[in-house]
Amino acid sequence: MAQLSYDKRVTALLVIDPYNDFISEGGKVWDRLKPVAEANGCVPNMVQVLEAARRAGLRIFFAPHRRYRPGDYETWTYVAPIQKAAWSRKTFEYGTWGGEFRSEFTPQPGDIVAQEHWCSSGFANTDLDLQLKRHGIQQLIAMGLIAHTCVEATVRFAVELGYDVTVVKDATASYSDREMRAALEVNLPNYASAIVAADEVRGALLP
Amino acid sequence: MAQLSYDKRVTALLVIDPYNDFISEGGKVWDRLKPVAEANGCVPNMVQVLEAARRAGLRIFFAPHRRYRPGDYETWTYVAPIQKAAWSRKTFEYGTWGGEFRSEFTPQPGDIVAQEHWCSSGFANTDLDLQLKRHGIQQLIAMGLIAHTCVEATVRFAVELGYDVTVVKDATASYSDREMRAALEVNLPNYASAIVAADEVRGALLP
Amino acid sequence: MAQLSYDKRVTALLVIDPYNDFISEGGKVWDRLKPVAEANGCVPNMVQVLEAARRAGLRIFFAPHRRYRPGDYETWTYVAPIQKAAWSRKTFEYGTWGGEFRSEFTPQPGDIVAQEHWCSSGFANTDLDLQLKRHGIQQLIAMGLIAHTCVEATVRFAVELGYDVTVVKDATASYSDREMRAALEVNLPNYASAIVAADEVRGALLP
Amino acid sequence: MAQLSYDKRVTALLVIDPYNDFISEGGKVWDRLKPVAEANGCVPNMVQVLEAARRAGLRIFFAPHRRYRPGDYETWTYVAPIQKAAWSRKTFEYGTWGGEFRSEFTPQPGDIVAQEHWCSSGFANTDLDLQLKRHGIQQLIAMGLIAHTCVEATVRFAVELGYDVTVVKDATASYSDREMRAALEVNLPNYASAIVAADEVRGALLP
Repeated sequence: MAQLSYDKRVTALLVIDPYNDFISEGGKVWDRLKPVAEANGCVPNMVQVLEAARRAGLRIFFAPHRRYRPGDYETWTYVAPIQKAAWSRKTFEYGTWGGEFRSEFTPQPGDIVAQEHWCSSGFANTDLDLQLKRHGIQQLIAMGLIAHTCVEATVRFAVELGYDVTVVKDATASYSDREMRAALEVNLPNYASAIVAADEVRGALLP
Repeated sequence: MAQLSYDKRVTALLVIDPYNDFISEGGKVWDRLKPVAEANGCVPNMVQVLEAARRAGLRIFFAPHRRYRPGDYETWTYVAPIQKAAWSRKTFEYGTWGGEFRSEFTPQPGDIVAQEHWCSSGFANTDLDLQLKRHGIQQLIAMGLIAHTCVEATVRFAVELGYDVTVVKDATASYSDREMRAALEVNLPNYASAIVAADEVRGALLP
Repeated sequence: MAQLSYDKRVTALLVIDPYNDFISEGGKVWDRLKPVAEANGCVPNMVQVLEAARRAGLRIFFAPHRRYRPGDYETWTYVAPIQKAAWSRKTFEYGTWGGEFRSEFTPQPGDIVAQEHWCSSGFANTDLDLQLKRHGIQQLIAMGLIAHTCVEATVRFAVELGYDVTVVKDATASYSDREMRAALEVNLPNYASAIVAADEVRGALLP
Repeated sequence: MAQLSYDKRVTALLVIDPYNDFISEGGKVWDRLKPVAEANGCVPNMVQVLEAARRAGLRIFFAPHRRYRPGDYETWTYVAPIQKAAWSRKTFEYGTWGGEFRSEFTPQPGDIVAQEHWCSSGFANTDLDLQLKRHGIQQLIAMGLIAHTCVEATVRFAVELGYDVTVVKDATASYSDREMRAALEVNLPNYASAIVAADEVRGALLP
């Protein structure tokens, strides 16, 4: 496990899919995430890490999922199960409240919002890697939703592409402890250099 | 040179950057492209190939350049010369007429518009490769602007990624014959399987 | 779950890391994989699926992990935990028996061996996507090692890149049921169109 | 044009295809490159830049073309013209002198040799981007062969992926001035931050 110490010139915060549909009361998927998210303080921890990163002068990047638009997937030869679910639910529907970031995560001037990703990885088929490189970023602090799909996928891709990644384990959530453990205890320890609590990240950023 | 014969199930038309700023009277770059574009009938040829492709039942893909938005490039460590030019000119400014496709190239239902590209290749940092794969496409007929920058880049990337490409040589334009020849006579013959006129493409699609 | 029926012209078998170090008695990691692998018949099932795929005329692709060579990782700024483990163990050491494929999986003429991958995904930083495209492949039947690292990573990437994937659930193995379930029950059902037994795959390929 | 001043911690030299088949007497393509290469001092300039880079403590990366092996391309659905040429000539044949780097460019301990590229870009389908990231590299000084194919392609890709690039204009060669100008005067000024002579690079590295 890395000692938590970041070179701020090459470190960024990466916020994955902070949509109302995921983490706001009334969002389409909130009821399924709520038990885990409320138990670990996911949203307040995400807010705390975001504020610490801003105060520490880190640049903030957002990796947003494709917001559903009419016609999406209809002409595809093959559609993955997770995409079929997004299609049938119209998750993050473009132009709706559910397809907006929860208000605390509204991008500010200077923040970078990558292009939308179609599946789970914030890097696949988007400009996220380019934007990180154009800002000289080599280390990522990752948080957001959902732990075993988009967060795990984005972290796996980040490491494959050459980034060093810290995962904030109480600033993410999933449908149950089973999915949380699959991501945080079984898989991500192979890829992330550190899997730590929000408090630890804040302490490292604002010593 | 390939004989022009396409398996329509795996072939698509790829239209690159048909913005008003490039190919409409009053566009920011039109005056520089006009001499070549009018000499070779670029716009009418693009329209002809688009119509032939629609009639032949090919799927149409668009590869659009980043439309300029305030803040673009400002925080980048390094900005390439072609990006500095786009930045200073505000080419394809988002929300303006110049940043819209020329009316004949307005996407129709069933067409696929890839995410915007930041530099010259329609594939780099976008979902174009994914969208082509999800529609089973292996062969591309490419046309649009500008011959030696975005068209050449997109064709080079397409071939590197595994596609077979035909370039429509009179459905593209550049600033002068020098740039046209660099793209169409020096470089692209190494990558494109065919570099042919719009009439030939139409003949192959609608025999 | 898809009904198992493959268009053989666009389907390939993808064999992930069938190294002696993983699946042969005496291999560096075999002792850790043996309990699961012997319980589910991993190696005989892999052989059975390979033979069925050959008889059905599918093309066979191999996605091999980086074979350790002196100097690997030594100059990297950041090294992921799974890479540190490979480094310290010298897994799949180049030029040794452990770094060769188990004999049943020796590539035959016409098989395609992709370039070696540095982390877990057979697609990341290799020519696997190119080779699949150059052979017109859109659907993959995936098997090999290890379920929750390289197999899961390769399947996740395949789907992100646009492929349809079947996972052969008893032709893979991991350190314990916990990792197997994280991959096969928690994560991969989001991405793979089918997660089935070797017998089912054989039945679909040789009806 | 950038003033030539490099942050050595993030700058690397990238040597593209310094094979005997290209730049040694008796190589398969040397006779076609010789007039330009001897006129501009290509090989001595490449040696000079390599030595300056080593003395300045830059890390050296090599981007090697696929060395021809029996079976290559035979099963591909589509083969690009430049690949057909490599296939028929068996350029850089594996195991032969032509497929070795010219002796002055033999990699030294600590140098990084990327995986072989199948077409022209050193980045496409290889681990070059990963290796650069893992060493913290953001700026490249590029030289090698051939100016309008592999060098131009590699520079175009580098810029699309987010790197800042200097091209050494007299440490490259092509079949004639026409191809040299297409690359160095028409196309690369859009992408490279600097296109300069070997002397200038040496002066910037060893001030």
